[in-house]
Amino acid sequence: MKRIRIKDLKDFCRAALVKEGLKEEYAQIVADVLTETDAYGTHSHGTKNLHNYIRKYRAGGIDINAEPEVVTEGLSFAVIDAKKALGMIPSVKAMEIACEKAKKTGIAVVTVRNSCHFGAAGYYANIAAKKGMIGIAMSNVDPNMTAPGARGMLIGNNPFAYAAPSKSVPTVFLDIAMSNVASLKVIQARKDGKEIPPTWIVDKDGLPTTDPSRYPEEGAMQPFAAHKGYGLAVMVDILTGILAGGATSMGGDIVSWVFQLDKPNNVCHTFMAIEPTLFYNEKPVADRVEEMCVSLRNAPKAKGSDRIYTPGEIEWEKYIVAEEEGINLPADVMDSLMGLSEESGLELKLI
Amino acid sequence: MKRIRIKDLKDFCRAALVKEGLKEEYAQIVADVLTETDAYGTHSHGTKNLHNYIRKYRAGGIDINAEPEVVTEGLSFAVIDAKKALGMIPSVKAMEIACEKAKKTGIAVVTVRNSCHFGAAGYYANIAAKKGMIGIAMSNVDPNMTAPGARGMLIGNNPFAYAAPSKSVPTVFLDIAMSNVASLKVIQARKDGKEIPPTWIVDKDGLPTTDPSRYPEEGAMQPFAAHKGYGLAVMVDILTGILAGGATSMGGDIVSWVFQLDKPNNVCHTFMAIEPTLFYNEKPVADRVEEMCVSLRNAPKAKGSDRIYTPGEIEWEKYIVAEEEGINLPADVMDSLMGLSEESGLELKLI
Repeated sequence: MKRIRIKDLKDFCRAALVKEGLKEEYAQIVADVLTETDAYGTHSHGTKNLHNYIRKYRAGGIDINAEPEVVTEGLSFAVIDAKKALGMIPSVKAMEIACEKAKKTGIAVVTVRNSCHFGAAGYYANIAAKKGMIGIAMSNVDPNMTAPGARGMLIGNNPFAYAAPSKSVPTVFLDIAMSNVASLKVIQARKDGKEIPPTWIVDKDGLPTTDPSRYPEEGAMQPFAAHKGYGLAVMVDILTGILAGGATSMGGDIVSWVFQLDKPNNVCHTFMAIEPTLFYNEKPVADRVEEMCVSLRNAPKAKGSDRIYTPGEIEWEKYIVAEEEGINLPADVMDSLMGLSEESGLELKLI
Repeated sequence: MKRIRIKDLKDFCRAALVKEGLKEEYAQIVADVLTETDAYGTHSHGTKNLHNYIRKYRAGGIDINAEPEVVTEGLSFAVIDAKKALGMIPSVKAMEIACEKAKKTGIAVVTVRNSCHFGAAGYYANIAAKKGMIGIAMSNVDPNMTAPGARGMLIGNNPFAYAAPSKSVPTVFLDIAMSNVASLKVIQARKDGKEIPPTWIVDKDGLPTTDPSRYPEEGAMQPFAAHKGYGLAVMVDILTGILAGGATSMGGDIVSWVFQLDKPNNVCHTFMAIEPTLFYNEKPVADRVEEMCVSLRNAPKAKGSDRIYTPGEIEWEKYIVAEEEGINLPADVMDSLMGLSEESGLELKLI
């Protein structure tokens, strides 16, 4: 693996987007979101996708000149029309508005419609948590998951994240999708010619299968815990697509952002922020979260286990390494960035 | 199975609580929550528990004279101190306050501390949905679940529910805990001498087991999808215990409401309401949710499946039967109610 300093990767991403025609301020937002996501180790949602976002700009699926706009707002809510912008741009703004409003009223929610892939949901939840608040972020996505009793791709595996301030780690945070595993794991097993557990996907008949060789042409991902993952995916569609007055993952209006580059992705996102000091101020929330984490980490270990992780701990440990030694770039991320570097003539300053 | 009319079961529950010394208004709230929960088929959380709640009043674990009080509030939030009341009493009040505030500001959250078991989370989410709003309800509970890498009961399987208005069914709603299955299923398998899937519980070493014969004396429930169910349980503890300034499920301050009748249960609950008409008013939210449900129900079926249920549909179908023919009471519910009837001298008017 090659390594790169966080600042150098941000500079590269910003420059590539500015060169493409995106204004400096927005290019910096996108560069920050993607690079920080790589820094804490979620490489599937980081800078690896930058080249495809740029291809989507060129193909017309994203509007490089879009100016997302607050179209409705009140004391504790707002609706943003992203106007086909790349998702990070309205999403950072949305979470910042949610935080500002929540500081006055206790809680606020901001929804975004007509948007495109926003990267990792956890990044936005962490914006709130780094301000000492509790953050929640979610998005609907193109249908890629089945439902109990169904066959085919019916509903998005709609990601959901939360974050809260802590002490020994910057935040406690979780970023999950409603499928048992990410589809990339299925595709990797297919490449490796390996069987998969029967809980990952269904085949063309809607039945569980251990054979990944026909996915994703046939079959669909399985929701985790059957009706639980399915029901939570429906919740995310209600809180994003329906609340924002935008598209839902079942309506046929949301397409894959990457496989249909010339079409708007059309997803909706929702961001919530809560100001805990208004509720209870006898002890800082970060102290109380830390106490909870300490009791989790110190609990008796399972046979063969030497550690219990609290949510987000693995990511923040990777982040510290990335800050000190640079981000370790896996081969697929490296390939994508090198391709963009060659195409744009911008240098990727590896360590 | 014996049947009873909804109204007659409510009357019985109210009378039993009033006879015990609970004031009429609160007895009616508890009777409504428990009976409606039985009517939609979640018998594990309905009137079956009434006798034990009464035993807990007598043992001192619940204060029959408690007057829950709003201790802090702002534009979009409130904190209620339940003062050791039975959970339904502060919880119905909390969701009603959340709805009132959300109608003005878009979203509101009300937390409850120092409470006792509130029954089924879905009941409270549905209070909001029946007003045309989106409702979310959750609670922490005594530790009964393990975490990845741990052994023993470490964290609650913290239930979470949401509901939204719909058309062909009253609401779309989901009420889940963060464990793979309810502990009752494990205990039933133990009684039946059957093996269980390896994803339900861990043994005393914290390792997955198919043998339920030592549960719950040894071992613990497994969170669904490993880090996903675990991470969501942590979220519920942050949004309930920490936000309310009350107890978390890991702190040792929350005990089983039923196995330690003389001690306060000490759980915290949180309720959120969202007023969707403030966000988007071109089409009623119930119409949009219905469209989503229709596309789910009409999707291609898996081989051997003739139906795709939308969340809450099974429950509302049972509710219609209960309204028309009375509630079918399973043997364990019947036994508990008959025991209370004999003890109190109050007649249970079966059909």
